[in-house]
Amino acid sequence: MAHKLENQINRLVEDYLVDYSGGKDIDHVETFDHPDKEVVIEIIENLRKLIFPGYFRNRSYRVYTVRNNTTMLLEDVIYHLMRQISIVLRYAPEYEKADQETIENHAEEVTFAFLEKLPQIRAYIETDVQAFYDGDPAAYNKDEIIYSYPGLYAILVNRIAHELFLLGVPLIPRIMTEHAHSRTGIDIHPGATIGKYFFIDHGTGIVIGETTVIGDNVKIYQGVTLGALSTRGGQALRSKKRHPTIMDNVTIYSGASILGGETVIGRDVVIGGNVFITKSVADGARVSVKNQELRYKYDAAHPAPPDDLSEDEAWFYVI
Amino acid sequence: MAHKLENQINRLVEDYLVDYSGGKDIDHVETFDHPDKEVVIEIIENLRKLIFPGYFRNRSYRVYTVRNNTTMLLEDVIYHLMRQISIVLRYAPEYEKADQETIENHAEEVTFAFLEKLPQIRAYIETDVQAFYDGDPAAYNKDEIIYSYPGLYAILVNRIAHELFLLGVPLIPRIMTEHAHSRTGIDIHPGATIGKYFFIDHGTGIVIGETTVIGDNVKIYQGVTLGALSTRGGQALRSKKRHPTIMDNVTIYSGASILGGETVIGRDVVIGGNVFITKSVADGARVSVKNQELRYKYDAAHPAPPDDLSEDEAWFYVI
Amino acid sequence: MAHKLENQINRLVEDYLVDYSGGKDIDHVETFDHPDKEVVIEIIENLRKLIFPGYFRNRSYRVYTVRNNTTMLLEDVIYHLMRQISIVLRYAPEYEKADQETIENHAEEVTFAFLEKLPQIRAYIETDVQAFYDGDPAAYNKDEIIYSYPGLYAILVNRIAHELFLLGVPLIPRIMTEHAHSRTGIDIHPGATIGKYFFIDHGTGIVIGETTVIGDNVKIYQGVTLGALSTRGGQALRSKKRHPTIMDNVTIYSGASILGGETVIGRDVVIGGNVFITKSVADGARVSVKNQELRYKYDAAHPAPPDDLSEDEAWFYVI
Repeated sequence: MAHKLENQINRLVEDYLVDYSGGKDIDHVETFDHPDKEVVIEIIENLRKLIFPGYFRNRSYRVYTVRNNTTMLLEDVIYHLMRQISIVLRYAPEYEKADQETIENHAEEVTFAFLEKLPQIRAYIETDVQAFYDGDPAAYNKDEIIYSYPGLYAILVNRIAHELFLLGVPLIPRIMTEHAHSRTGIDIHPGATIGKYFFIDHGTGIVIGETTVIGDNVKIYQGVTLGALSTRGGQALRSKKRHPTIMDNVTIYSGASILGGETVIGRDVVIGGNVFITKSVADGARVSVKNQELRYKYDAAHPAPPDDLSEDEAWFYVI
Repeated sequence: MAHKLENQINRLVEDYLVDYSGGKDIDHVETFDHPDKEVVIEIIENLRKLIFPGYFRNRSYRVYTVRNNTTMLLEDVIYHLMRQISIVLRYAPEYEKADQETIENHAEEVTFAFLEKLPQIRAYIETDVQAFYDGDPAAYNKDEIIYSYPGLYAILVNRIAHELFLLGVPLIPRIMTEHAHSRTGIDIHPGATIGKYFFIDHGTGIVIGETTVIGDNVKIYQGVTLGALSTRGGQALRSKKRHPTIMDNVTIYSGASILGGETVIGRDVVIGGNVFITKSVADGARVSVKNQELRYKYDAAHPAPPDDLSEDEAWFYVI
Repeated sequence: MAHKLENQINRLVEDYLVDYSGGKDIDHVETFDHPDKEVVIEIIENLRKLIFPGYFRNRSYRVYTVRNNTTMLLEDVIYHLMRQISIVLRYAPEYEKADQETIENHAEEVTFAFLEKLPQIRAYIETDVQAFYDGDPAAYNKDEIIYSYPGLYAILVNRIAHELFLLGVPLIPRIMTEHAHSRTGIDIHPGATIGKYFFIDHGTGIVIGETTVIGDNVKIYQGVTLGALSTRGGQALRSKKRHPTIMDNVTIYSGASILGGETVIGRDVVIGGNVFITKSVADGARVSVKNQELRYKYDAAHPAPPDDLSEDEAWFYVI
């Protein structure tokens, strides 16, 4: 019996090895380094501790000073980020064949250039926390937002990933934002540029595409898509501006879709729930679906009420 | 080289420390206790084992009796829950400056008051499992629901968090429901009141706001929002009833939005997919979108068929 | 004090034990084996390493040959999968009362029958990766897709779970796809049949029901439902074809719903965003929402622009 099992296993292994040698794109049997998703997630969590000093302090760190904590966290981030960047730089055409020293020097340069940006990222996150508190009557205090709001987590990871994206780091920014997407249901591409005081409520189902540009004081609710009109062009559209521009003080209610690289939503605009937009909107407009005609049916057990709930009434969504 | 790196790190640390002393809200550099999200999640998992005795038994527990298992799980929950509640009570204005003994006594009181409710929570969960089985032809048996259905996980966490919310525990209820939100895409605020036999199908994108009240035998599908008409009032709206009331035996199909604190959906109502509701609906009504006009285009390779698929046909959604 | 606590705990334990003996469906206090979700997830991760050899290699495996890695991973999968299948076979009516040897023989048979399918699964995944790359201008290379795209993870887990589903394995396929649902927001039932070159973009909120059949070269965007017209029949509808059939080369944009077991979407069809379909669509049709009338409001500070942004303009969504 055990012998039979061994034979079965050996036969399967042979079959798999033959299959692996068939030249598929998904076969990476050469032994070279790959980015490590778990390490990238650990980098995010340590950066989060540096962004919110004291909020996520490890128990073992308690006895140390803030200076020591900061140094320890920072050294950890530097060590891992430099190493992961060294690995992924091979995906950038200009470093594909570079010698290891060139790669490592550039990885170090990029790591420190990124870490220089951390105080600026913190300044933005401070405004985001304020926007979440001001915008959500269900928020009892700012700590609740920092500890539990998925929208804050998503924007924090985007602000980190976006800086790495601007520095030309391959793969890692997307691994970061897809981790946030997995945790929150909010899919913000690292290429998206987002201003101060950004507020995401609930968030599940939000999609913000790569070339989106968002101003200050913008509020976005669950299920909103800031997307491309069509991606039929496929890889030919790479890097082309194909997602919208949202100006300052815009509110976009749940389920709305705003599509197209030339679509500009003007300052102070309010976009109602489920609105579908493919052209620009002028400053200050409040846009809503004009009417959604509803049909009401009743049966013998539940006759129609005498009042305004007739079958033909149109219901308006007034923001 | 190592020296250069050391200098760079030291300089960054100094910069960060200067930044930390700038008085931002997101700086919590005092050394005091914070709630521990990982511990809160462990409390949920142990409560789940107490709610479904035997389903999630640890291997090491196998040799023990049910009484021993129960005692061990319960002691673990009590120890951690009392400690976490002690920490978060500082967020309640009336306990902000209380002495530690007062805090700990109240934490103990709340912990036991909560645990007294567990049999009642179990009685509700029993009805939920039944509702899931009755409502979903894709459910092969009840164990499949208990082991794998995200909707059941979300309602279970809500029923736990809601009791803690009613007992006035800050932060922890929201940390719990946001953990469920992260795992399931279903966002139920701990303040929401939900009756027996609650059924959530698929669930991703569901949002149920803080002041929502839901009766018995209600079914909700993916993408449904039970929300506020507008949250522009921000913190001024805190605790105001701003989310709808759903009476018994209501079914709400995918993508529907029901908004507003004065909106009441009557008994036996069926709300169709994508319906947008901001006013009350009388008992027994079946509400659907009256028509969605669709446009059909064909090309030379695919001429329009001769029959009913003309360009102008309106398509009705009949529930 | 400690004595009081002990009394409280003992009283709660007694109460819980009384409650456990009340005959609820959710009580499984007999000591028998249950499937272990963590082990099932580990099986998925090891199968993923076998599908993408080299991409997710453990550091400790580096020194070994591909043959050794493959053998080690395979033996691990076999050991755990056979054991988990032995446990869940008890849920199949025909094995409920079978003796343990019959169960184990069948579990072994099913495990190897499944593992024979792995090269075929790999052949399909290879086409999926190609479809993702061709379809998404934001994809910088195929490795980015393999490491970070949630849609690829969801289809990979479905292809694994679907084979186990076809082999009649209870519970495990659904535990697998609900794990993918939790990680990605994409809910594909293991019963769904999906052709080659399948592309899911963004993905959050997608629901694909049990009896759905999808051809080759199909693209699906976030928030799409391939569902049943109504599930009011509950368990009476078990195994009936109640979800749609999608033919080759179909694109379905975000938020669209296609419902009903007799609904067939013909070859080369394009379904626009938010379209709601309950009847079949002929080959080659491009279907879009005919118009969504929008209302624009302005105020004194933001007068209406002189041009085309009048209140009554209908906006068309042209794909």
